[in-house]
Amino acid sequence: MDDRVREHARVLVEWSARVEAGDDVVVSVAEDAHDLAVAVAAELGDRGANLVATYASDEVTRAYLRAHDGDFEADPAHELALYESADVALFLGGGRNTAATADVDGDVRAAYSRARSGVREARMDTDWVSTVHPTRSLAQQAGMAYEAYRDFVYEAVLRDWASLADEMARLKDVLDAGSEVHIVADRTDLTMSIEDRIAVNSAASVAYDSHNLPSGEVFTAPVAESVEGEAFFDVPMTINGHRVRDVHLTFADGEVTDFEAGTNAHVLADVLETDDGARRLGELGVGMNRGIDRVTDNILFDEKMGGTVHMALGRAYDACLPEGETGNASAVHVDLIADVTGDSRFEVDGEVIQRNGTFRWEDGFESA
Amino acid sequence: MDDRVREHARVLVEWSARVEAGDDVVVSVAEDAHDLAVAVAAELGDRGANLVATYASDEVTRAYLRAHDGDFEADPAHELALYESADVALFLGGGRNTAATADVDGDVRAAYSRARSGVREARMDTDWVSTVHPTRSLAQQAGMAYEAYRDFVYEAVLRDWASLADEMARLKDVLDAGSEVHIVADRTDLTMSIEDRIAVNSAASVAYDSHNLPSGEVFTAPVAESVEGEAFFDVPMTINGHRVRDVHLTFADGEVTDFEAGTNAHVLADVLETDDGARRLGELGVGMNRGIDRVTDNILFDEKMGGTVHMALGRAYDACLPEGETGNASAVHVDLIADVTGDSRFEVDGEVIQRNGTFRWEDGFESA
Repeated sequence: MDDRVREHARVLVEWSARVEAGDDVVVSVAEDAHDLAVAVAAELGDRGANLVATYASDEVTRAYLRAHDGDFEADPAHELALYESADVALFLGGGRNTAATADVDGDVRAAYSRARSGVREARMDTDWVSTVHPTRSLAQQAGMAYEAYRDFVYEAVLRDWASLADEMARLKDVLDAGSEVHIVADRTDLTMSIEDRIAVNSAASVAYDSHNLPSGEVFTAPVAESVEGEAFFDVPMTINGHRVRDVHLTFADGEVTDFEAGTNAHVLADVLETDDGARRLGELGVGMNRGIDRVTDNILFDEKMGGTVHMALGRAYDACLPEGETGNASAVHVDLIADVTGDSRFEVDGEVIQRNGTFRWEDGFESA
Repeated sequence: MDDRVREHARVLVEWSARVEAGDDVVVSVAEDAHDLAVAVAAELGDRGANLVATYASDEVTRAYLRAHDGDFEADPAHELALYESADVALFLGGGRNTAATADVDGDVRAAYSRARSGVREARMDTDWVSTVHPTRSLAQQAGMAYEAYRDFVYEAVLRDWASLADEMARLKDVLDAGSEVHIVADRTDLTMSIEDRIAVNSAASVAYDSHNLPSGEVFTAPVAESVEGEAFFDVPMTINGHRVRDVHLTFADGEVTDFEAGTNAHVLADVLETDDGARRLGELGVGMNRGIDRVTDNILFDEKMGGTVHMALGRAYDACLPEGETGNASAVHVDLIADVTGDSRFEVDGEVIQRNGTFRWEDGFESA
């Protein structure tokens, strides 16, 4: 076994999930995540944690959903009991085909998801972490050779997380203290209020309320009604199965009043028509993982890429909101990403925090 | 997908486990049992049952056990809760290497097993069924080519079970009514009392208290103290990882007083020294599955082979005992199998029930 698989497992169990002796751990294993599951099992055994492995196969799910009439029982007792009794849930992604459920009826899929909201809540109440084992299927999705993709994944996952967490804390402090963000870049000139909002230092650990490995972003929730101006997103995104490129949005009073897209504009139109909240921003995020240096068509990696900024249409995260305040509400949360390593600046209350993708505390930052 | 995989899933879900709408089903999937899991998921979806798939990987178990210090917590809450809330548990065997856990310390393995007796009990309280998906690893264990092994497995599994259940009921009726069994064959002349004992018609369905697919045997528990004479078992068996051949046992007052084995006699000696019950018979079984026509070094198949009789040293099954009676008790249950298609007879109360492997109700039976 590649030593990096073992290191990945160690980072996941130790840094991300903070597993301790006696913890009841569910490890969800995708079809081709076997090697990572073996390495994780060794880490859990070593710590005296208790292990139940579940099989998260898209092909099994497809077969089940296609055969079902769509009238699902709410929150099956055995699955609910499993997660309600678990302390930690580790999701090891890495299937054999990212399109494996492409022919499942959308209504059936939605009904299945609705019927399991209690299971989902129980899962989210554990110290859960999602990661992926680099598989050939994900390499293909990224348009990369298998060996090169593995290097890419481990470069993103095997960081000095404590040190990155310290760096991200700087940006979090600026955003927490700040009132207004102003972003200027190619076809972008956007302002928004972040008054009283709380930034999340997403350092790939439950200790930071961060549930992705890799992570490496700082995100907050803008005051939705305050967003004004235009923004351009040049990083391609897969939205509802379609590749959408070069999205340009115009905002007035927080609402999208005009949009363009280089490809599949109809997909974006569908998103915007979902509900009122879908036309407003729910998230502003800044990618700070320098181990991620390319787009791989996987949101787990793309939105954390160093030198990018992302915004999401739709639902805001509760963690960013002051006690008692409700954020932008929507059935969707669609991330759009901009590369800001070109001519750009990111200002908070008039002060430039990042210019051309370089933060003011980094070497090479040009103050003006 | 081979149509036989789908038929296997249908027999498992419909005939064996009797799954109904709303049942909470755990499907335990071995490393290479993926295709059968997909087919089972479709059957469960079609019936409106609820599915949780677990990953039963010997390599994951090995990694966990080798890393653990052996001081296991009793019955982890999440695993216990999963099975206590389940109606049905389907175990789909079929790993990649039947020796995958060969280097796990025996004491650690035993401690792990002891610590999970509650989980095991909860599993056994469901309508559980064990089966195997034909894998290359199992083909290798059987000394067979993969294609030929698949044919073998489906020949054993895809029977007309209702009709076999009817035939097996005939033998059950004879054994239930009978008092004494007398078996005569090569180097075998054995008598035993089965007075008041209850035979199990093991027809591969929970409706018959039968939890293996394939099955196809009728078994009972002899009165242990009554066994007298000698018996020869010419079908090779793997006992504690060693291949044991040509076992000959001599009984007096129900106890083994002398034994021989063609290979690995020391393994048999270890078994007999386990405890008092290990020197007595706990089971007498008759294989009646004519789809199984060869030895494949897998007890799930071998003991059900048509034209064989097996006896087990050690523990008796409760299902064979009248209310309030305790059978032979032991920590072991080691099956030994004899091919009776040669010159042999199986008598109950002096009447020949089977001669040279043919039952008295079958074509070709010679009455004397």
